[in-house]
Amino acid sequence: MKIDVNSDMGEGFGVYQLCDDAALMKVVSSANIACGFHAGDPAIMTNMVRLAKQHGVGIGAHPGLRDRQGFGRRELPFSADEICQQVAYQLGALMAIARAEGTTVAHLSFHAAMGNIVNRDEKLAQQVMALVARIDSSLIIFAQPDTLIERAAQAAGLKTLTLFLADRAYDAQGRLVPRGVAGSVINEEGALRARVRQFLQQGTVTTIEGEELAVRARSILVHSDTPGSLALASIVRSEVEASGHQVAPAAEVVA
Amino acid sequence: MKIDVNSDMGEGFGVYQLCDDAALMKVVSSANIACGFHAGDPAIMTNMVRLAKQHGVGIGAHPGLRDRQGFGRRELPFSADEICQQVAYQLGALMAIARAEGTTVAHLSFHAAMGNIVNRDEKLAQQVMALVARIDSSLIIFAQPDTLIERAAQAAGLKTLTLFLADRAYDAQGRLVPRGVAGSVINEEGALRARVRQFLQQGTVTTIEGEELAVRARSILVHSDTPGSLALASIVRSEVEASGHQVAPAAEVVA
Amino acid sequence: MKIDVNSDMGEGFGVYQLCDDAALMKVVSSANIACGFHAGDPAIMTNMVRLAKQHGVGIGAHPGLRDRQGFGRRELPFSADEICQQVAYQLGALMAIARAEGTTVAHLSFHAAMGNIVNRDEKLAQQVMALVARIDSSLIIFAQPDTLIERAAQAAGLKTLTLFLADRAYDAQGRLVPRGVAGSVINEEGALRARVRQFLQQGTVTTIEGEELAVRARSILVHSDTPGSLALASIVRSEVEASGHQVAPAAEVVA
Amino acid sequence: MKIDVNSDMGEGFGVYQLCDDAALMKVVSSANIACGFHAGDPAIMTNMVRLAKQHGVGIGAHPGLRDRQGFGRRELPFSADEICQQVAYQLGALMAIARAEGTTVAHLSFHAAMGNIVNRDEKLAQQVMALVARIDSSLIIFAQPDTLIERAAQAAGLKTLTLFLADRAYDAQGRLVPRGVAGSVINEEGALRARVRQFLQQGTVTTIEGEELAVRARSILVHSDTPGSLALASIVRSEVEASGHQVAPAAEVVA
Repeated sequence: MKIDVNSDMGEGFGVYQLCDDAALMKVVSSANIACGFHAGDPAIMTNMVRLAKQHGVGIGAHPGLRDRQGFGRRELPFSADEICQQVAYQLGALMAIARAEGTTVAHLSFHAAMGNIVNRDEKLAQQVMALVARIDSSLIIFAQPDTLIERAAQAAGLKTLTLFLADRAYDAQGRLVPRGVAGSVINEEGALRARVRQFLQQGTVTTIEGEELAVRARSILVHSDTPGSLALASIVRSEVEASGHQVAPAAEVVA
Repeated sequence: MKIDVNSDMGEGFGVYQLCDDAALMKVVSSANIACGFHAGDPAIMTNMVRLAKQHGVGIGAHPGLRDRQGFGRRELPFSADEICQQVAYQLGALMAIARAEGTTVAHLSFHAAMGNIVNRDEKLAQQVMALVARIDSSLIIFAQPDTLIERAAQAAGLKTLTLFLADRAYDAQGRLVPRGVAGSVINEEGALRARVRQFLQQGTVTTIEGEELAVRARSILVHSDTPGSLALASIVRSEVEASGHQVAPAAEVVA
Repeated sequence: MKIDVNSDMGEGFGVYQLCDDAALMKVVSSANIACGFHAGDPAIMTNMVRLAKQHGVGIGAHPGLRDRQGFGRRELPFSADEICQQVAYQLGALMAIARAEGTTVAHLSFHAAMGNIVNRDEKLAQQVMALVARIDSSLIIFAQPDTLIERAAQAAGLKTLTLFLADRAYDAQGRLVPRGVAGSVINEEGALRARVRQFLQQGTVTTIEGEELAVRARSILVHSDTPGSLALASIVRSEVEASGHQVAPAAEVVA
Repeated sequence: MKIDVNSDMGEGFGVYQLCDDAALMKVVSSANIACGFHAGDPAIMTNMVRLAKQHGVGIGAHPGLRDRQGFGRRELPFSADEICQQVAYQLGALMAIARAEGTTVAHLSFHAAMGNIVNRDEKLAQQVMALVARIDSSLIIFAQPDTLIERAAQAAGLKTLTLFLADRAYDAQGRLVPRGVAGSVINEEGALRARVRQFLQQGTVTTIEGEELAVRARSILVHSDTPGSLALASIVRSEVEASGHQVAPAAEVVA
C-alpha cells in the first residue's frame, strides 16, 4: 500500500528558520509549504518548491491566517469572506511559483487556527471548499478523518487524503488530546515506532484511555516545528518502508 | 479603433484608500490591481475583481516591490531572483482570486520602482518575462513603447499593449519628463483634452521642447493617485468616445 | 474656563493620510498622536510633534493595538501583559521623539479596541495605569467620565481629563450610542453647534431619549477620521471661544 | 581591570528565536536588545529586560533599520532624518519598557546596516549622536575604536565604550576582514582563547597579515547569531576571569 509522509515546510521568515527544511525534504513525500501569511515569503516558497521538485516530493499549499506575529496560531476575528480571500490569495501565490518552476501544487493542508476555524463551521467549510474547487478542482485536501473539512471537500468534488498524527495522543472519540495534557505528545522513539507499526499493520491507534480505535488514514503527519522533527520523520519513514508499504506523495496515494 | 483607458486600482490598505476606486471603475476599461505588496490586500483585491467583472473592465495584475511603507516607490536592493519571485507570488495571488470570482487576469502592468528596475536591466526583463510566460502565456504586458519590457515580453511570446500618458509631458526622445520639472504634469482640463485629441487624431504628442513626436500607443494611462484622477479619467474617456473611437479593455484592443 | 479641544492625529501610514493633519493642528489644542502600531510611523510622528510644538498644541500618545491591517479596531486576543507591553513601547517611542524635538508628551489617550478592552477589565485598567505611572507619573490620562480608565488612572496617582464627544449621541446612562444606530452621529452644523453650546453653558447633553443629562467634561473630542472633521473641529473651537471660554491644551485645563 | 562582555539579544520575532537568549543572559555583562524594527517585539523586549535585570546585566538599545524581512542587514534608502527618527523611536520604546520594569537603559549599540550607514557619514553620525544626547545624555555609546560613531558620540558629550570582536579577523588598518574572506571568522576554541588572552594581556590582536596591532577596547562583543554563540561567550568570559580581570557591565567599565 502507498502511504504518504507529510510535514509543514518553509515556515521560516527572512533569516529565521523553524527546522532544517532541506534535510526534511529528503525524508517526506509531501510538503505543506507556508504561503507567506503566517510564515514563509516568496524566496522561501521558491526554494521549497525547487527542493520538492528535486526530491520528487508532492507540493502542497499550507495557508494560514494573516498573522505573522502570532504564527497563525491565534484565532483572529476574520470574517468568512476574509478567510476565503486569504485562502485564495495564498494558494494562488504558491500555484504561480510552482508553475514558474515547471511544476504544480498537488494538495492543500490548512495551518493551525485557520484549520480550526474552518473545521468547526460547516457553512464556512463549504464556502472555502467551493472556492478551492473553483481555483483548482484537481487539488487534494488533507484532513483528519470524519471532519467538516473532509466532508465539505468531498461535497465540493475535491479529493481528500486523511491524516494520522503519529506523535499525538488520541482520545476515545478519535480527537487529538490537547497539547499540555500529560501524554498528549509522543516523542520517545520506541513508543513512536510502535504506534506507527500498529497503525500500518492493524489500522488502529491505542487511545489515551487505553483502547484500540480504528484510524482511517493514508498519510502520516510529522510536525516540523518540534525539536527532533527530522529524526521523527526518519523513524516514521523507516517504519513505513519496513512494514512493506511504499512512501509516496499524496497524488499517488489517492490515485 | 479600440482604445483602452487604464488606471492603477485598489492601492489602499486596511482603512486607507488612495482614490474612489468604485467610481473610477465605471470610467476605465482596464484596471491594474495592486496585489498586496506595495498596496492592497486580499479583501481589496477581491472587491476590485468583483467591481471590474461587474463593469466589464479588464483585470490586470499590478505587482510592486515588497515595500508597503514606501508604497513600492523606493528602489530596494532586491536580487533579480527576488524580483521574479515577487512577481510570481503577486500575479498568482490575483489569478486565484479572479478564478474564485469566475473571471481571469488579462494583463500585467508593473508598479513604480519594480517597473523602473526591470526596465533598465535587459537580462532581468527577459528573466521576468520568461517567468510570466511560464505562469500564463496569454497575459498582455503593458509597457511604454520601445522599452526593454516591451521587447522582452515580445521575445517571451507575450502580447503587449503600449501606453500613452496623457497627463505627463514627454521630451524629444519620447521619455517622460520627470515629476518635479516645471510642466511635467498636465492637469488643466483644456490642455489635457487637447493632448488626448491630438494623440487620437494624429498619433502624436507635442514634446516639452515644442515639437511633434509620434506616439505608438493603444492604451491611455490615468494616474489614480493624483488629486482629481476621477475627473481626469472621465475627460480622457469622453475624448476617446467623442473622437469616434471605442473604449475597450486590453484584451479587445490587442485582439 | 479653559476647555481643551482634542483630536486623533497622524493616523496615516506611508503615503496614506486619513485627514489633513497640518490644517487640523491649527484648530485643536491637544493632539493624540498615533504611535506606529495601528497607524503612524516614526516620520509621521516626528512631523506631528513638530507641528504641535509650532502651534502650541499639547502632545499626547495615542497607543493602539498592534494591528495596522485592522487599524486597531479589531479586538485581537492579546494578553493583559501584551497590552501593557504595547502601551509602554508606543508611549516610550513618542516620548523619545518629543524629547529629541525639545518638547514632551503631556497626555495619553487610548485608541479604539485597546481602549475598549482596557475599559471593561478593572484589573487590566489598574495594571496599565500603574505601568503608565511608572513610565511618567506626570502624564494626563484622557477618559470618558466615570469609567474604569478614569478610576484606575486616579488610583495610580495620574491626573485625568474627561471627554465630551460633541458629534456622538449619548443614552440615558451616559454611554455613547453605537455607530450604526440611527441618530448616533451628529454631523449637521446647527445641531452640532447647539450641542456644544448646551454643553458649555449648562454642562449637559440631551440624550437620544430626549432628556437632559449632566456631562462632567473639560475636553471636547473631535473625530478626525470622519469626513468634514476639519470643519467640525473649527465649529467646536469657535463655539468654545464664542461662549467666553478659552481653548487650551490638557496641561493647562487640569492645572 | 573591568571588562565588558556584550552580545546582541532578543533578536527573535514571534515564535522565532535566533539564539538561547535566556542562557546567554547568564554569561554576558551587557545585552544589546533588539527594539522591534529589524527584530524583536514588545513581548521579547520585556522578557529581555527582565532577564537582564535579574542577572545584573547592563541593558542596551540595539536599534536597526526598519526592515524585518532583511533583518536590518540591507542598506535601504532611508534619509538621514528617517534614520534619526528610527533611532529615537526604538530607543524610546526600550527606555519606557525598562522604566516600567524598574530599571534603565544604559547603553546603545547600532545593528548591522544602520551602524554601517551612520559610521561612514560624518554629518549623519553627528546628527544621530546629537539626537541621542537630547533623549538621554547619560547613555554610553558602543563603537569600534577610532570610528565616526565614537568621535561623534564624544563630540555630543556622550560616553563611549570601544569594542573588540574576538571572533573576527582584523586587517593591518584595524578594520574587520569581511565575512566571506577565508580566515575572517575565528570559531576554533583554542584560537579564540588565544586571541582573547592576547587582547587582555598585551592589548593587541594579530592581524590577518600576521602582525601585532594595538587594540584600544574595553568590551568584547560576541555574535549571538552564529552557531555555538553560547559556548563562544562562555569561553570569552572564562578567559577574562582567568586573566584576573572582572567581567562588568558597560556602566561600571566606563565609570
